[in-house]
Amino acid sequence: MRKGKGTFDLSEMYIVRRNYEDKAEKYVRTHGNLNFAPGGSFADVIETLDQYGVVPDEVYTGLLDGAERHDHGEMDKVLSGYMKGIIGNNSVSTVWKRGFNGILDAYLGAKPDSFTYNGKTYTPQSFKEFLELDQNDYISITSFSHQPFYTYFPLEVPDNWRWANSFNLPLDEMMAAIDHALMNGYTVAWASDVSEGGFSRQGIAIVPDENAVENAGTDQAKWLGLSERERRSSIAGKVGSEVLKEKTITQEMRQLAYDNYQTTDDHGMHIYGIAKDQNGNKFYLVKNSWGETGPYNGVWYASEAFVRYKTTSIVMHKDALPKATAKKL
Amino acid sequence: MRKGKGTFDLSEMYIVRRNYEDKAEKYVRTHGNLNFAPGGSFADVIETLDQYGVVPDEVYTGLLDGAERHDHGEMDKVLSGYMKGIIGNNSVSTVWKRGFNGILDAYLGAKPDSFTYNGKTYTPQSFKEFLELDQNDYISITSFSHQPFYTYFPLEVPDNWRWANSFNLPLDEMMAAIDHALMNGYTVAWASDVSEGGFSRQGIAIVPDENAVENAGTDQAKWLGLSERERRSSIAGKVGSEVLKEKTITQEMRQLAYDNYQTTDDHGMHIYGIAKDQNGNKFYLVKNSWGETGPYNGVWYASEAFVRYKTTSIVMHKDALPKATAKKL
Amino acid sequence: MRKGKGTFDLSEMYIVRRNYEDKAEKYVRTHGNLNFAPGGSFADVIETLDQYGVVPDEVYTGLLDGAERHDHGEMDKVLSGYMKGIIGNNSVSTVWKRGFNGILDAYLGAKPDSFTYNGKTYTPQSFKEFLELDQNDYISITSFSHQPFYTYFPLEVPDNWRWANSFNLPLDEMMAAIDHALMNGYTVAWASDVSEGGFSRQGIAIVPDENAVENAGTDQAKWLGLSERERRSSIAGKVGSEVLKEKTITQEMRQLAYDNYQTTDDHGMHIYGIAKDQNGNKFYLVKNSWGETGPYNGVWYASEAFVRYKTTSIVMHKDALPKATAKKL
Amino acid sequence: MRKGKGTFDLSEMYIVRRNYEDKAEKYVRTHGNLNFAPGGSFADVIETLDQYGVVPDEVYTGLLDGAERHDHGEMDKVLSGYMKGIIGNNSVSTVWKRGFNGILDAYLGAKPDSFTYNGKTYTPQSFKEFLELDQNDYISITSFSHQPFYTYFPLEVPDNWRWANSFNLPLDEMMAAIDHALMNGYTVAWASDVSEGGFSRQGIAIVPDENAVENAGTDQAKWLGLSERERRSSIAGKVGSEVLKEKTITQEMRQLAYDNYQTTDDHGMHIYGIAKDQNGNKFYLVKNSWGETGPYNGVWYASEAFVRYKTTSIVMHKDALPKATAKKL
Amino acid sequence: MRKGKGTFDLSEMYIVRRNYEDKAEKYVRTHGNLNFAPGGSFADVIETLDQYGVVPDEVYTGLLDGAERHDHGEMDKVLSGYMKGIIGNNSVSTVWKRGFNGILDAYLGAKPDSFTYNGKTYTPQSFKEFLELDQNDYISITSFSHQPFYTYFPLEVPDNWRWANSFNLPLDEMMAAIDHALMNGYTVAWASDVSEGGFSRQGIAIVPDENAVENAGTDQAKWLGLSERERRSSIAGKVGSEVLKEKTITQEMRQLAYDNYQTTDDHGMHIYGIAKDQNGNKFYLVKNSWGETGPYNGVWYASEAFVRYKTTSIVMHKDALPKATAKKL
Amino acid sequence: MRKGKGTFDLSEMYIVRRNYEDKAEKYVRTHGNLNFAPGGSFADVIETLDQYGVVPDEVYTGLLDGAERHDHGEMDKVLSGYMKGIIGNNSVSTVWKRGFNGILDAYLGAKPDSFTYNGKTYTPQSFKEFLELDQNDYISITSFSHQPFYTYFPLEVPDNWRWANSFNLPLDEMMAAIDHALMNGYTVAWASDVSEGGFSRQGIAIVPDENAVENAGTDQAKWLGLSERERRSSIAGKVGSEVLKEKTITQEMRQLAYDNYQTTDDHGMHIYGIAKDQNGNKFYLVKNSWGETGPYNGVWYASEAFVRYKTTSIVMHKDALPKATAKKL
Repeated sequence: MRKGKGTFDLSEMYIVRRNYEDKAEKYVRTHGNLNFAPGGSFADVIETLDQYGVVPDEVYTGLLDGAERHDHGEMDKVLSGYMKGIIGNNSVSTVWKRGFNGILDAYLGAKPDSFTYNGKTYTPQSFKEFLELDQNDYISITSFSHQPFYTYFPLEVPDNWRWANSFNLPLDEMMAAIDHALMNGYTVAWASDVSEGGFSRQGIAIVPDENAVENAGTDQAKWLGLSERERRSSIAGKVGSEVLKEKTITQEMRQLAYDNYQTTDDHGMHIYGIAKDQNGNKFYLVKNSWGETGPYNGVWYASEAFVRYKTTSIVMHKDALPKATAKKL
Repeated sequence: MRKGKGTFDLSEMYIVRRNYEDKAEKYVRTHGNLNFAPGGSFADVIETLDQYGVVPDEVYTGLLDGAERHDHGEMDKVLSGYMKGIIGNNSVSTVWKRGFNGILDAYLGAKPDSFTYNGKTYTPQSFKEFLELDQNDYISITSFSHQPFYTYFPLEVPDNWRWANSFNLPLDEMMAAIDHALMNGYTVAWASDVSEGGFSRQGIAIVPDENAVENAGTDQAKWLGLSERERRSSIAGKVGSEVLKEKTITQEMRQLAYDNYQTTDDHGMHIYGIAKDQNGNKFYLVKNSWGETGPYNGVWYASEAFVRYKTTSIVMHKDALPKATAKKL
Repeated sequence: MRKGKGTFDLSEMYIVRRNYEDKAEKYVRTHGNLNFAPGGSFADVIETLDQYGVVPDEVYTGLLDGAERHDHGEMDKVLSGYMKGIIGNNSVSTVWKRGFNGILDAYLGAKPDSFTYNGKTYTPQSFKEFLELDQNDYISITSFSHQPFYTYFPLEVPDNWRWANSFNLPLDEMMAAIDHALMNGYTVAWASDVSEGGFSRQGIAIVPDENAVENAGTDQAKWLGLSERERRSSIAGKVGSEVLKEKTITQEMRQLAYDNYQTTDDHGMHIYGIAKDQNGNKFYLVKNSWGETGPYNGVWYASEAFVRYKTTSIVMHKDALPKATAKKL
Repeated sequence: MRKGKGTFDLSEMYIVRRNYEDKAEKYVRTHGNLNFAPGGSFADVIETLDQYGVVPDEVYTGLLDGAERHDHGEMDKVLSGYMKGIIGNNSVSTVWKRGFNGILDAYLGAKPDSFTYNGKTYTPQSFKEFLELDQNDYISITSFSHQPFYTYFPLEVPDNWRWANSFNLPLDEMMAAIDHALMNGYTVAWASDVSEGGFSRQGIAIVPDENAVENAGTDQAKWLGLSERERRSSIAGKVGSEVLKEKTITQEMRQLAYDNYQTTDDHGMHIYGIAKDQNGNKFYLVKNSWGETGPYNGVWYASEAFVRYKTTSIVMHKDALPKATAKKL
Repeated sequence: MRKGKGTFDLSEMYIVRRNYEDKAEKYVRTHGNLNFAPGGSFADVIETLDQYGVVPDEVYTGLLDGAERHDHGEMDKVLSGYMKGIIGNNSVSTVWKRGFNGILDAYLGAKPDSFTYNGKTYTPQSFKEFLELDQNDYISITSFSHQPFYTYFPLEVPDNWRWANSFNLPLDEMMAAIDHALMNGYTVAWASDVSEGGFSRQGIAIVPDENAVENAGTDQAKWLGLSERERRSSIAGKVGSEVLKEKTITQEMRQLAYDNYQTTDDHGMHIYGIAKDQNGNKFYLVKNSWGETGPYNGVWYASEAFVRYKTTSIVMHKDALPKATAKKL
Repeated sequence: MRKGKGTFDLSEMYIVRRNYEDKAEKYVRTHGNLNFAPGGSFADVIETLDQYGVVPDEVYTGLLDGAERHDHGEMDKVLSGYMKGIIGNNSVSTVWKRGFNGILDAYLGAKPDSFTYNGKTYTPQSFKEFLELDQNDYISITSFSHQPFYTYFPLEVPDNWRWANSFNLPLDEMMAAIDHALMNGYTVAWASDVSEGGFSRQGIAIVPDENAVENAGTDQAKWLGLSERERRSSIAGKVGSEVLKEKTITQEMRQLAYDNYQTTDDHGMHIYGIAKDQNGNKFYLVKNSWGETGPYNGVWYASEAFVRYKTTSIVMHKDALPKATAKKL
């Protein structure tokens, strides 16, 4: 859009398909020491642009027989069974990829070599060039203290099967980069943990503080007698209906949650703006892919604390970085 | 040949391929309660003639990339992994056969819809008709006493995944049928147990009698002191080099060997003639598919005792049956 | 009853017991490629009549120690463990059936060789003859398009471990056979899918149409906005309490439900009559073995659509067939 | 024999059978935390005398159908499968032992309640009394330093499923007890490790010293250049054909071999005498149950070092103990 | 307390830690045929007193990093994984216990060799001596009829990995021993089954009689029409709120519940007194370790019937035994 | 040595130990999607220099109790069992690394924090600095065509659990780099496939050509009649004793062998020189870590063809690169 080409609904399934192929090949080469499962990271999108190009969604929906939604349960099981059959041998044939693609063709349809769009014929490569997408324009950023800051490292999570690098920034600097991007008209791709209790189906994502007496409401006396677990449970029911005091998130808290499996890398969304509530608390506006659900029609309000605590990585345009940060790349 | 159409090398792989498809479908319908493994029975050939036709070997070799021999290890593992992925769900998609065929296409090549042979164009069906092959002309015969004689029943062995019927004859009558066919210019397809000790790689298949003193040679005194196991082991080394006295095989012995897993249904061959050795013992001439190996260049001499003992089933042209037997069908 | 011999409560457990023995033997012969689990088909009753006879229920209840109901959980586990021990060897002993029967005797009691009933002594065979039961009088009928009509084939479902044949009729002709039988005083044994949503515990079995606006009741506007899944869920709650419009079932719909595991062969019942509701819709009266439960005291009303959709097979007396159909056997 | 009643061949299989029953019951009670496998200890013989009695071998051979030797492979697998079926439930029936005995009856024959022997009728109990066998007359002795000496403890080995106690003596005192028994006309039941390298099939059991230059023979120079492993391997080939210098076995060496799984409790034999070789080395005469094999027709010569090193436990008559030791019981 | 030394909160975790070490060693020696899992019996406390001594709770809490409660889930999994690694080899190293203790140190903290308590320095041994605890003063008692009464035997339950003996008394005599102890100022350690339906979280443990019409309340007519299962379910909801008639427990009922897994040995508590309800029914006062929960602040009222039915074993001071019983030890 | 500091035997076990810790942490972070097994790559040495330093071999031998060689079988099993216990939970404790190090301490000894060497005290870091080792001086090089040349990528093999990058050169350029390094006094660390048939235990590593008639010796006629497999087998026996004609290795052949699992990354060695045989064929001198075995006392002669074919990666000092190649980094 920024480039004045109009809006495009690009085919997510084309990217998924291409990444299945790459993942299968790497799974074979590592003799199975890889997470061959559905799911991946933003790197699956960015790092395959140059090699595979993109196609409009209408050209490759991945839907067969008039189906309206993707249901990949059987496909994932047969692909997994197929791949285990490949690595369970002392040698590997030269035809296995053909069979693998045969399965993908059956479940997702054949890949388009070329297609016509708005009256012009494209290949996926030429369509990417037409859109002026360049994978080198984007950068993945994270913030974890078990690796040195201001270096690139592959984030150690199961979905990063691509072993793609992220640039490691201190927490405050990562948050500043998000704000800078939003202030300058860029959106930020946001990988975060939505299985967290504070990520409510009611369009709110916060980190309520179970130790704050303010969160007790009128039951302060009783509150103090509750165990931490009971207070946590009590708060959970209030998310989305009451204003709750949040924790102040530090680099250490964020690291601990990653170290002890409390934070998992499980969903990708888009941050596209900033808002403040009646008390002046800062929230990020998040577009989720779950459709127009929830009280805000598919938009989530993620508090600053939540984004600090639960962001596994972000991807943004390099031009959107603050200058000082950009220099450190 | 009998029909004066010349000799034809028909594609075994075309039949194998078709049977993989059938077996997969039945495996799904029985929710996995079927032997989904390589291997099958003569029924796989006979009972698919009408539905799938036949093609010449050169039209469908099942060999890719200039390979000279079939090595289906990887294919069997990926097919098995794929199928387990199908039946491990509460519902089955409408596209799974397409993916299954995608795998078969990758490993065996695509099935021919039509082909040119000796300057004429055929479909597998029309080629079958040209050859005047008719699946109703053939009959499968067996001889086991746990089912009533003179009835059809599906032989209960793992490879009979097709649940195909055989006609059950008393042992002597089955042997008479073989002889009658051979005497009248028909060959007999023979399913037998070649993992048996007496089936020697030296082109001889017999049932030596470990209790016969005659088999001791000049060591008769020592022979009597040996345990039955030792005598059996001693004889095994003499098969193919000495003339050994064989056991007299009864219906009961044959049944017991089937009941206790000593007889397994593991290989299909062709009986095409009868011969006698210097002592007048009767042998059947067997053409094996193992190539021109052994002292008789791919021919085995199977003793009458062996054929009585170790035949799991035979398939022959109905016209080749003795009249009396044919009437009982 | 038809034969004027009075009513008899025959021992189901005697048949179950005999079938356990047969299933175990076949499981061994197929080296485990068989569904060795509780459950079976009507063939287990019909096809064993000649060989094993029948006994009155009071003669073989299969209940020990004054128990009132069958609880075969432990028995099924030990039988399964025992059988796996048998097939996991290269050879099979001659005594394993004795041990298998030892287990069955322990859990079900010993089989009666002879017994006294109403003052006369019978064997199971002579009792069967006294009842003038003849297994050749009965026929199993099914209706699926993946096999040619008007031929016999073994229905490919896990419970058909016996590989018993059914005669394949077009759907309308199968339905006509049911009606003809009922109209002529015969009942029909009915194998159907009772885990289906429309088979309500409230004595009703229908196939509600989630696409019919009529089923929305007064909420038609809202109905159209619901997804198919939501409409299905909404209807499910109305079965048994509202009159719902049903789907019109074709041969293709019936086949698809079988192909994709939606239809499973899980229960045997008896159809004994026909009824119409206030709107003239046709229902079959079904006697279930679940006791006098539900609003109709153990009777189910199965709609014509349900019977068309969810019948896996029926067994009836051959005399009960329409003449035209009987000729095609 | 000591009691002047003549010699008796008692039924080992009767004891095995009774112990299978006990082991199964204990396996159930411990919810499977027990070694349910063939094999046991002398306690299985001694501690069941009072409860089950004994029978002559001819009365209960455990052999069916004219078999000449025991082959319990299938039986052990089906028993194991059966038992796993029992403990895999939340409750246990009251009939499982009946089924278990049904299996044992099938594979070993039914237990005798009473029998006629030399013209008199006995029960197993009365036959035990006739033989004047009393389980309290016997004691099991062991020698391990991880438990206090002069106390009873259950030897912690897999085969001691009975948790039977042994009396723990210092090594020298255990050896003195063996000698004292033999000198006074008693034999000693000996549980030892026959999978040890020094236990030769040639009738010799020793503990050769791989560090002794004397064992090098004429190759002393080369010997020193070999690794310990090579020397050990070189010696192994000489056992039974050369006189080899043995290690001096201490309590610590013996304990270490038990701690690190080098010593396993795998066979029971009988020591019945003492002999010396030409160099005055002391050997124990051992009667093995392997039949009349080896150069000494079923007799093994076990060196003093071997018995010190590899005895897991011994059982002897209490009257055979040295007085000083007997007092400490 | 009885010894006038004041009250002491002894470290449960010190005993748990020591028992983990013992259990691991025995698990290795039995090659894994032992219940290596959390849980044990009173013997774990009593039988380790002499060898390991005791320490005050404050000296070894087993809590790290300021934690307030024990959460051993991860520890139990890593210990189990570690131990399986040990026994899965043909030999065992000399260092494995060091690694095992390294894990325990990590999760529970290091064991104290000595410590200062109330200004004096103790070792665990000297502290035990200071407390005048002597393991020989205590006895474990049980009551099951599958073993002879008035003998010691190791109770066959999974948690008795120590194979510790209990003295077997007839039920009435065991109950008399409990009463005698309580009347004389001793408490009784009580191992019982708290997963039983009648053991209510409401501080009551009884054995309601589902066959007693008295338990129907005002619904007697309906009660008779219910199945036994329904009556049982109906009663379950009344435990703790209504006075219910209990069953009369016999030795046979108690044995049956143990035989069929209805009784499991799953929790240890303390009986410290006797009370009667308004109807004169006798209850035992039980102190549970679940904290001050329930209506009676951590105290349970266990009916005489419950204690008769569901006691797996008790441990008491030998001085607390009735004279007549003490003589039989 | 090049730096004039004398020769040092650095502790391999110190590096192994440190890498176990890193691998365990990454295994946890990837939730087990990593090859947690013994083995690794040169990156494990190079990339940990800065973080962990180095120590002399005598300071950390990893050998306990006077052992002479490493036997890590039990350690690897317990580590693996321990780690599976960690990742099998929803959360991870903060103490698991302490337990992991407790195991490593038990099996390898504690890590030295500081040590005295030649009279001076060092930490691992200061010792590394004293040796002037710098991890940035070294580069890993590989040559595979499935990734673009002249870029860095993590070689996709199971042992590259560190996801370390190698620089991808065309085959000829990689070979030139090896030669350039050797010619300039540098050695080259060489990761190669020693499970290959041509890697003989006789100190020779070649790629014999089974299609070359020259390799037939005097049996040329017979040679032509052999199958390819037979010729390969025939040649295998001649490696090390005859001069054999080798294949000419191309980039494609090398890639295929990697793709089909013929080449595996299984051993690290050192190339330290170049030699020519009597026919002018070029061989690389290789120092193996298998001790002074083979006819050349621990030296292998690897032919140019073998190094071209079977090199998975090399590590060398950046100064040793040809200028033209160095510029492309």
